[in-house]
Amino acid sequence: MGIKKINIGKNLLAENDKIAEENFLLLKEKRILSFNLMGSPGAGKTKILERTIPYIKKKFGCGVIEGDIAGTFDSKRLEKFKIPIVQINTGGVCHLDAFMIKKGIEKLPLDEIKILFVENVGNLVCPAEFKIGIEKNIVVSSITEGEDKSVKYPLIFKISDVCLINKTDLLKFLKTDIKKIERNILTINKNLKIIKISAETGENVSAWINYIFSEYRKYNLG
Amino acid sequence: MGIKKINIGKNLLAENDKIAEENFLLLKEKRILSFNLMGSPGAGKTKILERTIPYIKKKFGCGVIEGDIAGTFDSKRLEKFKIPIVQINTGGVCHLDAFMIKKGIEKLPLDEIKILFVENVGNLVCPAEFKIGIEKNIVVSSITEGEDKSVKYPLIFKISDVCLINKTDLLKFLKTDIKKIERNILTINKNLKIIKISAETGENVSAWINYIFSEYRKYNLG
Repeated sequence: MGIKKINIGKNLLAENDKIAEENFLLLKEKRILSFNLMGSPGAGKTKILERTIPYIKKKFGCGVIEGDIAGTFDSKRLEKFKIPIVQINTGGVCHLDAFMIKKGIEKLPLDEIKILFVENVGNLVCPAEFKIGIEKNIVVSSITEGEDKSVKYPLIFKISDVCLINKTDLLKFLKTDIKKIERNILTINKNLKIIKISAETGENVSAWINYIFSEYRKYNLG
Repeated sequence: MGIKKINIGKNLLAENDKIAEENFLLLKEKRILSFNLMGSPGAGKTKILERTIPYIKKKFGCGVIEGDIAGTFDSKRLEKFKIPIVQINTGGVCHLDAFMIKKGIEKLPLDEIKILFVENVGNLVCPAEFKIGIEKNIVVSSITEGEDKSVKYPLIFKISDVCLINKTDLLKFLKTDIKKIERNILTINKNLKIIKISAETGENVSAWINYIFSEYRKYNLG
Protein backbone atom coordinates (compact mmCIF):
# COMPACT_ATOMS: atom_id res chain seq x y z
CA MET A 1 0.00 0.00 0.00
CA GLY A 2 1.61 3.22 -1.05
CA ILE A 3 1.12 6.72 0.19
CA LYS A 4 2.86 9.43 -1.72
CA LYS A 5 4.45 10.99 1.33
CA ILE A 6 6.03 7.69 2.33
CA ASN A 7 7.44 7.04 -1.13
CA ILE A 8 9.19 10.37 -1.30
CA GLY A 9 11.59 9.11 1.32
CA LYS A 10 14.09 10.88 3.49
CA ASN A 11 16.80 11.01 0.86
CA LEU A 12 14.66 12.75 -1.70
CA LEU A 13 13.53 15.30 0.88
CA ALA A 14 17.14 15.88 1.90
CA GLU A 15 18.01 16.39 -1.75
CA ASN A 16 15.13 18.86 -2.03
CA ASP A 17 16.41 20.82 0.98
CA LYS A 18 19.91 20.94 -0.48
CA ILE A 19 18.63 22.46 -3.72
CA ALA A 20 16.40 24.83 -1.72
CA GLU A 21 19.51 26.08 0.07
CA GLU A 22 21.27 26.60 -3.27
CA ASN A 23 18.30 28.60 -4.56
CA PHE A 24 18.30 30.66 -1.38
CA LEU A 25 22.02 31.44 -1.65
CA LEU A 26 21.84 32.30 -5.34
CA LEU A 27 19.02 34.76 -4.74
CA LYS A 28 20.93 36.21 -1.79
CA GLU A 29 24.03 36.65 -3.92
CA LYS A 30 21.96 38.40 -6.58
CA ARG A 31 20.23 40.48 -3.88
CA ILE A 32 16.83 39.38 -5.07
CA LEU A 33 14.16 39.38 -2.37
CA SER A 34 11.69 36.60 -3.00
CA PHE A 35 8.14 35.89 -1.86
CA ASN A 36 6.37 32.52 -2.01
CA LEU A 37 2.59 33.03 -2.26
CA MET A 38 0.65 30.02 -1.07
CA GLY A 39 -3.04 29.44 -0.44
CA SER A 40 -6.16 27.55 -1.48
CA PRO A 41 -7.39 27.55 -5.05
CA GLY A 42 -9.28 30.77 -5.55
CA ALA A 43 -7.90 32.55 -2.48
CA GLY A 44 -6.80 35.37 -4.77
CA LYS A 45 -3.07 34.82 -5.25
CA THR A 46 -3.00 35.88 -8.90
CA LYS A 47 -5.26 38.85 -8.29
CA ILE A 48 -2.95 39.97 -5.48
CA LEU A 49 -0.04 39.81 -7.93
CA GLU A 50 -2.06 41.82 -10.44
CA ARG A 51 -2.56 44.48 -7.75
CA THR A 52 1.03 44.32 -6.52
CA ILE A 53 3.20 44.25 -9.62
CA PRO A 54 2.38 47.77 -10.90
CA TYR A 55 3.64 49.29 -7.63
CA ILE A 56 6.80 47.21 -7.59
CA LYS A 57 7.52 47.73 -11.27
CA LYS A 58 7.65 51.50 -10.78
CA LYS A 59 10.58 51.15 -8.40
CA PHE A 60 12.26 47.80 -9.10
CA GLY A 61 12.61 45.13 -11.72
CA CYS A 62 10.50 42.16 -10.76
CA GLY A 63 9.81 38.67 -12.01
CA VAL A 64 7.34 35.87 -11.41
CA ILE A 65 7.50 32.09 -11.25
CA GLU A 66 3.99 30.71 -11.74
CA GLY A 67 3.27 27.20 -10.51
CA ASP A 68 0.25 25.36 -11.82
CA ILE A 69 -0.75 21.76 -12.22
CA ALA A 70 -1.83 22.50 -15.78
CA GLY A 71 -2.44 25.49 -18.02
CA THR A 72 -1.02 28.99 -18.32
CA PHE A 73 -4.05 30.96 -17.13
CA ASP A 74 -2.26 32.79 -14.36
CA SER A 75 0.77 33.63 -16.48
CA LYS A 76 -1.53 35.01 -19.14
CA ARG A 77 -3.21 37.25 -16.58
CA LEU A 78 0.21 38.71 -15.73
CA GLU A 79 1.51 38.99 -19.29
CA LYS A 80 0.21 42.56 -19.58
CA PHE A 81 2.86 43.78 -17.12
CA LYS A 82 5.66 42.86 -19.52
CA ILE A 83 7.89 41.42 -16.83
CA PRO A 84 9.78 38.13 -16.95
CA ILE A 85 7.46 35.22 -16.09
CA VAL A 86 8.28 31.54 -15.93
CA GLN A 87 5.33 29.17 -15.99
CA ILE A 88 5.96 25.82 -14.31
CA ASN A 89 3.49 23.04 -15.00
CA THR A 90 3.92 20.40 -12.34
CA GLY A 91 2.20 17.68 -14.36
CA GLY A 92 -0.15 16.64 -11.57
CA VAL A 93 2.16 17.31 -8.63
CA CYS A 94 0.36 19.31 -5.95
CA HIS A 95 3.14 21.71 -4.94
CA LEU A 96 6.31 23.37 -6.19
CA ASP A 97 9.59 21.84 -5.03
CA ALA A 98 13.12 23.20 -4.90
CA PHE A 99 14.16 21.59 -8.17
CA MET A 100 11.28 23.20 -10.05
CA ILE A 101 12.22 26.58 -8.58
CA LYS A 102 15.86 26.03 -9.55
CA LYS A 103 14.75 25.38 -13.14
CA GLY A 104 12.55 28.46 -12.97
CA ILE A 105 15.30 30.70 -11.64
CA GLU A 106 17.63 29.51 -14.41
CA LYS A 107 15.24 30.91 -16.99
CA LEU A 108 14.95 34.35 -15.38
CA PRO A 109 17.17 37.36 -16.21
CA LEU A 110 18.38 37.62 -12.62
CA ASP A 111 20.40 40.78 -13.12
CA GLU A 112 17.24 42.68 -14.04
CA ILE A 113 15.25 41.48 -11.03
CA LYS A 114 15.15 42.76 -7.46
CA ILE A 115 11.84 41.30 -6.33
CA LEU A 116 10.76 37.78 -7.27
CA PHE A 117 7.27 36.45 -6.68
CA VAL A 118 6.55 32.73 -6.72
CA GLU A 119 2.90 31.75 -7.01
CA ASN A 120 2.65 28.23 -5.66
CA VAL A 121 0.07 25.63 -6.68
CA GLY A 122 -3.33 26.37 -5.10
CA ASN A 123 -3.26 24.08 -2.10
CA LEU A 124 -3.32 24.81 1.62
CA VAL A 125 -1.41 21.67 2.53
CA CYS A 126 1.44 20.35 0.40
CA PRO A 127 3.28 23.55 -0.61
CA ALA A 128 4.06 24.08 3.09
CA GLU A 129 5.88 20.77 3.26
CA PHE A 130 8.53 21.50 0.64
CA LYS A 131 11.31 24.01 1.15
CA ILE A 132 12.00 25.87 -2.08
CA GLY A 133 14.60 28.44 -1.01
CA ILE A 134 12.37 31.47 -1.16
CA GLU A 135 12.96 34.15 1.49
CA LYS A 136 9.42 34.98 2.63
CA ASN A 137 6.44 32.69 2.90
CA ILE A 138 3.10 34.39 2.39
CA VAL A 139 -0.14 32.52 3.06
CA VAL A 140 -3.19 33.97 1.34
CA SER A 141 -6.50 33.12 3.00
CA SER A 142 -9.79 34.49 1.82
CA ILE A 143 -12.56 35.35 4.27
CA THR A 144 -14.98 33.26 2.19
CA GLU A 145 -13.10 30.15 3.31
CA GLY A 146 -14.48 30.44 6.84
CA GLU A 147 -12.96 31.08 10.24
CA ASP A 148 -11.22 27.80 11.01
CA LYS A 149 -8.71 27.32 8.20
CA SER A 150 -5.63 28.09 10.29
CA VAL A 151 -6.50 25.50 12.93
CA LYS A 152 -7.44 22.88 10.33
CA TYR A 153 -4.36 23.45 8.15
CA PRO A 154 -1.85 24.67 10.74
CA LEU A 155 1.50 23.97 9.05
CA ILE A 156 1.19 26.58 6.32
CA PHE A 157 0.30 29.23 8.90
CA LYS A 158 3.19 28.12 11.13
CA ILE A 159 5.85 28.49 8.46
CA SER A 160 4.59 31.77 7.00
CA ASP A 161 5.89 35.27 7.63
CA VAL A 162 2.73 37.06 6.52
CA CYS A 163 -0.91 36.11 6.23
CA LEU A 164 -2.83 38.13 3.68
CA ILE A 165 -6.50 37.88 4.63
CA ASN A 166 -8.10 38.60 1.29
CA LYS A 167 -11.56 39.51 -0.02
CA THR A 168 -12.38 41.88 2.85
CA ASP A 169 -14.77 43.62 0.44
CA LEU A 170 -17.11 40.63 0.89
CA LEU A 171 -17.15 40.89 4.66
CA LYS A 172 -20.38 42.88 4.67
CA PHE A 173 -22.20 40.08 2.87
CA LEU A 174 -21.01 37.20 5.06
CA LYS A 175 -21.59 36.05 8.60
CA THR A 176 -17.84 35.50 8.89
CA ASP A 177 -16.24 36.93 12.03
CA ILE A 178 -12.89 38.33 10.90
CA LYS A 179 -11.75 38.83 14.48
CA LYS A 180 -12.20 35.10 15.01
CA ILE A 181 -10.15 34.40 11.87
CA GLU A 182 -7.37 36.57 13.31
CA ARG A 183 -7.59 35.02 16.77
CA ASN A 184 -7.40 31.52 15.29
CA ILE A 185 -4.39 32.46 13.16
CA LEU A 186 -2.53 33.92 16.12
CA THR A 187 -3.21 30.76 18.15
CA ILE A 188 -1.29 28.84 15.51
CA ASN A 189 1.49 31.39 14.99
CA LYS A 190 1.57 34.40 17.25
CA ASN A 191 4.34 36.03 15.21
CA LEU A 192 2.49 35.90 11.91
CA LYS A 193 2.02 39.37 10.46
CA ILE A 194 -1.61 39.72 9.35
CA ILE A 195 -2.54 42.15 6.59
CA LYS A 196 -6.22 42.39 5.66
CA ILE A 197 -6.76 43.36 2.04
CA SER A 198 -9.15 43.28 -0.84
CA ALA A 199 -7.28 42.57 -4.05
CA GLU A 200 -10.59 43.12 -5.83
CA THR A 201 -11.08 46.74 -4.67
CA GLY A 202 -7.47 47.50 -3.72
CA GLU A 203 -8.44 48.20 -0.11
CA ASN A 204 -5.38 48.25 2.15
CA VAL A 205 -3.14 46.80 -0.56
CA SER A 206 -0.82 49.70 0.29
CA ALA A 207 0.00 48.02 3.63
CA TRP A 208 1.17 44.93 1.74
CA ILE A 209 3.22 47.05 -0.69
CA ASN A 210 4.79 48.94 2.21
CA TYR A 211 5.72 45.62 3.79
CA ILE A 212 7.47 44.52 0.60
CA PHE A 213 9.45 47.76 0.30
CA SER A 214 10.36 47.75 3.98
CA GLU A 215 11.55 44.14 3.78
CA TYR A 216 13.54 44.95 0.67
CA ARG A 217 15.40 47.71 2.53
CA LYS A 218 16.17 45.34 5.44
CA TYR A 219 17.25 42.58 3.05
CA ASN A 220 19.78 44.81 1.37
CA LEU A 221 21.14 46.14 4.63
CA GLY A 222 21.64 42.61 5.98
CA MET B 1 10.28 38.81 -21.34
CA GLY B 2 7.18 36.81 -22.04
CA ILE B 3 6.22 33.46 -20.61
CA LYS B 4 8.62 30.54 -20.50
CA LYS B 5 7.23 27.10 -19.83
CA ILE B 6 8.68 24.16 -17.96
CA ASN B 7 7.04 20.73 -17.89
CA ILE B 8 8.18 18.71 -14.91
CA GLY B 9 6.80 15.43 -16.21
CA LYS B 10 4.53 12.79 -14.81
CA ASN B 11 3.97 12.38 -11.13
CA LEU B 12 5.22 9.92 -8.63
CA LEU B 13 1.96 8.54 -7.39
CA ALA B 14 1.70 5.07 -5.96
CA GLU B 15 -1.30 2.76 -5.97
CA ASN B 16 -3.65 1.80 -3.22
CA ASP B 17 -6.27 0.38 -5.57
CA LYS B 18 -6.39 -3.06 -4.00
CA ILE B 19 -7.66 -1.78 -0.66
CA ALA B 20 -9.95 0.66 -2.46
CA GLU B 21 -11.47 -2.29 -4.32
CA GLU B 22 -11.96 -4.14 -1.01
CA ASN B 23 -13.71 -1.13 0.47
CA PHE B 24 -15.89 -0.87 -2.62
CA LEU B 25 -16.92 -4.52 -2.47
CA LEU B 26 -17.63 -4.45 1.26
CA LEU B 27 -19.92 -1.43 0.86
CA LYS B 28 -21.59 -3.11 -2.12
CA GLU B 29 -22.19 -6.25 -0.11
CA LYS B 30 -23.71 -4.19 2.70
CA ARG B 31 -25.76 -2.21 0.14
CA ILE B 32 -24.38 1.07 1.44
CA LEU B 33 -24.30 3.84 -1.13
CA SER B 34 -21.32 6.08 -0.48
CA PHE B 35 -20.38 9.64 -1.50
CA ASN B 36 -16.89 11.15 -1.38
CA LEU B 37 -17.12 14.94 -0.95
CA MET B 38 -14.00 16.70 -2.17
CA GLY B 39 -13.17 20.38 -2.64
CA SER B 40 -10.98 23.27 -1.57
CA PRO B 41 -10.76 24.30 2.06
CA GLY B 42 -13.82 26.42 2.76
CA ALA B 43 -15.80 25.32 -0.30
CA GLY B 44 -18.64 24.37 2.03
CA LYS B 45 -18.37 20.59 2.34
CA THR B 46 -19.32 20.42 6.01
CA LYS B 47 -22.12 22.92 5.60
CA ILE B 48 -23.51 20.83 2.74
CA LEU B 49 -23.49 17.81 5.05
CA GLU B 50 -25.25 19.86 7.70
CA ARG B 51 -27.95 20.67 5.14
CA THR B 52 -28.12 17.14 3.74
CA ILE B 53 -28.12 14.83 6.75
CA PRO B 54 -31.53 15.85 8.19
CA TYR B 55 -33.24 14.84 4.91
CA ILE B 56 -31.39 11.53 4.67
CA LYS B 57 -31.87 10.69 8.33
CA LYS B 58 -35.63 10.86 7.97
CA LYS B 59 -35.56 8.00 5.46
CA PHE B 60 -32.36 6.06 5.97
CA GLY B 61 -29.64 5.39 8.46
CA CYS B 62 -26.54 7.33 7.49
CA GLY B 63 -22.97 7.71 8.63
CA VAL B 64 -20.00 10.01 8.06
CA ILE B 65 -16.25 9.59 7.76
CA GLU B 66 -14.62 12.96 8.36
CA GLY B 67 -11.11 13.49 7.03
CA ASP B 68 -8.99 16.29 8.41
CA ILE B 69 -5.31 16.99 8.73
CA ALA B 70 -5.83 17.96 12.35
CA GLY B 71 -8.67 18.69 14.73
CA THR B 72 -12.26 17.53 15.08
CA PHE B 73 -14.05 20.76 14.09
CA ASP B 74 -16.10 19.22 11.31
CA SER B 75 -17.12 16.17 13.32
CA LYS B 76 -18.25 18.43 16.13
CA ARG B 77 -20.42 20.40 13.72
CA LEU B 78 -22.16 17.13 12.78
CA GLU B 79 -22.44 15.70 16.29
CA LYS B 80 -25.89 17.23 16.76
CA PHE B 81 -27.37 14.78 14.23
CA LYS B 82 -26.59 11.83 16.49
CA ILE B 83 -25.42 9.61 13.64
CA PRO B 84 -22.27 7.47 13.56
CA ILE B 85 -19.25 9.63 12.69
CA VAL B 86 -15.63 8.55 12.38
CA GLN B 87 -13.03 11.31 12.47
CA ILE B 88 -9.81 10.52 10.64
CA ASN B 89 -6.85 12.76 11.35
CA THR B 90 -4.35 12.27 8.59
CA GLY B 91 -1.47 13.72 10.61
CA GLY B 92 -0.29 16.04 7.86
CA VAL B 93 -1.22 13.94 4.85
CA CYS B 94 -3.13 15.99 2.32
CA HIS B 95 -5.79 13.47 1.31
CA LEU B 96 -7.64 10.37 2.45
CA ASP B 97 -6.38 7.07 1.08
CA ALA B 98 -8.01 3.66 0.85
CA PHE B 99 -6.36 2.36 4.01
CA MET B 100 -7.71 5.25 6.09
CA ILE B 101 -11.19 4.62 4.68
CA LYS B 102 -10.86 0.90 5.47
CA LYS B 103 -10.04 1.81 9.08
CA GLY B 104 -12.97 4.24 9.11
CA ILE B 105 -15.43 1.68 7.75
CA GLU B 106 -14.32 -0.83 10.39
CA LYS B 107 -15.46 1.55 13.10
CA LEU B 108 -18.93 2.15 11.65
CA PRO B 109 -22.05 0.09 12.49
CA LEU B 110 -22.49 -0.95 8.87
CA ASP B 111 -25.78 -2.77 9.38
CA GLU B 112 -27.43 0.47 10.48
CA ILE B 113 -26.19 2.52 7.54
CA LYS B 114 -27.57 2.88 4.03
CA ILE B 115 -25.91 6.13 2.99
CA LEU B 116 -22.29 6.91 3.84
CA PHE B 117 -20.72 10.32 3.36
CA VAL B 118 -16.97 10.78 3.31
CA GLU B 119 -15.71 14.32 3.73
CA ASN B 120 -12.23 14.37 2.27
CA VAL B 121 -9.40 16.72 3.30
CA GLY B 122 -9.92 20.22 1.91
CA ASN B 123 -7.73 20.09 -1.18
CA LEU B 124 -8.59 20.38 -4.87
CA VAL B 125 -5.62 18.28 -5.97
CA CYS B 126 -4.48 15.25 -4.01
CA PRO B 127 -7.78 13.62 -2.97
CA ALA B 128 -8.50 13.09 -6.67
CA GLU B 129 -5.33 11.05 -7.07
CA PHE B 130 -6.18 8.35 -4.54
CA LYS B 131 -8.91 5.80 -5.09
CA ILE B 132 -10.65 5.06 -1.83
CA GLY B 133 -13.42 2.71 -2.91
CA ILE B 134 -16.31 5.13 -2.53
CA GLU B 135 -19.11 4.85 -5.11
CA LYS B 136 -19.73 8.48 -6.06
CA ASN B 137 -17.23 11.31 -6.28
CA ILE B 138 -18.65 14.75 -5.56
CA VAL B 139 -16.58 17.87 -6.16
CA VAL B 140 -17.72 20.94 -4.27
CA SER B 141 -16.67 24.22 -5.82
CA SER B 142 -17.73 27.56 -4.43
CA ILE B 143 -18.45 30.48 -6.74
CA THR B 144 -16.10 32.63 -4.64
CA GLU B 145 -13.18 30.56 -5.97
CA GLY B 146 -13.47 32.13 -9.42
CA GLU B 147 -14.36 30.81 -12.84
CA ASP B 148 -11.26 28.85 -13.80
CA LYS B 149 -10.87 26.19 -11.11
CA SER B 150 -11.97 23.29 -13.32
CA VAL B 151 -9.43 24.07 -15.99
CA LYS B 152 -6.64 24.66 -13.48
CA TYR B 153 -7.38 21.56 -11.40
CA PRO B 154 -8.89 19.30 -14.05
CA LEU B 155 -8.41 15.85 -12.52
CA ILE B 156 -10.88 16.24 -9.68
CA PHE B 157 -13.54 17.43 -12.13
CA LYS B 158 -12.73 14.58 -14.51
CA ILE B 159 -13.20 11.83 -11.94
CA SER B 160 -16.32 13.27 -10.33
CA ASP B 161 -19.94 12.25 -10.90
CA VAL B 162 -21.42 15.49 -9.58
CA CYS B 163 -20.19 19.04 -9.16
CA LEU B 164 -21.96 20.99 -6.47
CA ILE B 165 -21.47 24.66 -7.28
CA ASN B 166 -21.94 26.16 -3.84
CA LYS B 167 -22.53 29.62 -2.36
CA THR B 168 -24.93 30.75 -5.11
CA ASP B 169 -26.39 33.17 -2.53
CA LEU B 170 -23.23 35.27 -2.98
CA LEU B 171 -23.61 35.51 -6.74
CA LYS B 172 -25.32 38.88 -6.54
CA PHE B 173 -22.33 40.39 -4.76
CA LEU B 174 -19.64 39.06 -7.10
CA LYS B 175 -18.56 39.71 -10.65
CA THR B 176 -18.32 35.94 -11.12
CA ASP B 177 -19.99 34.61 -14.27
CA ILE B 178 -21.61 31.35 -13.23
CA LYS B 179 -22.32 30.42 -16.85
CA LYS B 180 -18.59 30.59 -17.48
CA ILE B 181 -17.95 28.34 -14.47
CA GLU B 182 -20.38 25.82 -15.93
CA ARG B 183 -18.94 26.08 -19.44
CA ASN B 184 -15.42 25.54 -18.10
CA ILE B 185 -16.51 22.52 -16.06
CA LEU B 186 -18.21 20.91 -19.06
CA THR B 187 -15.09 21.45 -21.16
CA ILE B 188 -13.24 19.27 -18.68
CA ASN B 189 -15.98 16.68 -18.18
CA LYS B 190 -19.06 16.93 -20.35
CA ASN B 191 -20.82 14.19 -18.35
CA LEU B 192 -20.44 15.89 -15.00
CA LYS B 193 -23.82 16.56 -13.40
CA ILE B 194 -23.85 20.13 -12.13
CA ILE B 195 -26.10 21.12 -9.24
CA LYS B 196 -26.02 24.77 -8.14
CA ILE B 197 -26.83 25.22 -4.47
CA SER B 198 -26.47 27.46 -1.51
CA ALA B 199 -25.81 25.40 1.58
CA GLU B 200 -26.04 28.67 3.52
CA THR B 201 -29.64 29.49 2.51
CA GLY B 202 -30.72 25.98 1.45
CA GLU B 203 -31.46 27.16 -2.09
CA ASN B 204 -31.81 24.21 -4.49
CA VAL B 205 -30.45 21.75 -1.93
CA SER B 206 -33.55 19.68 -2.77
CA ALA B 207 -32.04 18.90 -6.20
CA TRP B 208 -29.02 17.40 -4.48
CA ILE B 209 -31.18 15.41 -2.06
CA ASN B 210 -33.27 14.11 -4.97
CA TYR B 211 -30.09 13.02 -6.70
CA ILE B 212 -29.03 11.03 -3.61
CA PHE B 213 -32.39 9.29 -3.31
CA SER B 214 -32.56 8.53 -7.01
CA GLU B 215 -29.03 7.08 -6.99
CA TYR B 216 -29.90 5.02 -3.93
CA ARG B 217 -32.83 3.44 -5.78
CA LYS B 218 -30.62 2.65 -8.80
CA TYR B 219 -27.86 1.27 -6.57
CA ASN B 220 -30.22 -1.17 -4.91
CA LEU B 221 -31.73 -2.30 -8.18
CA GLY B 222 -28.31 -2.97 -9.66
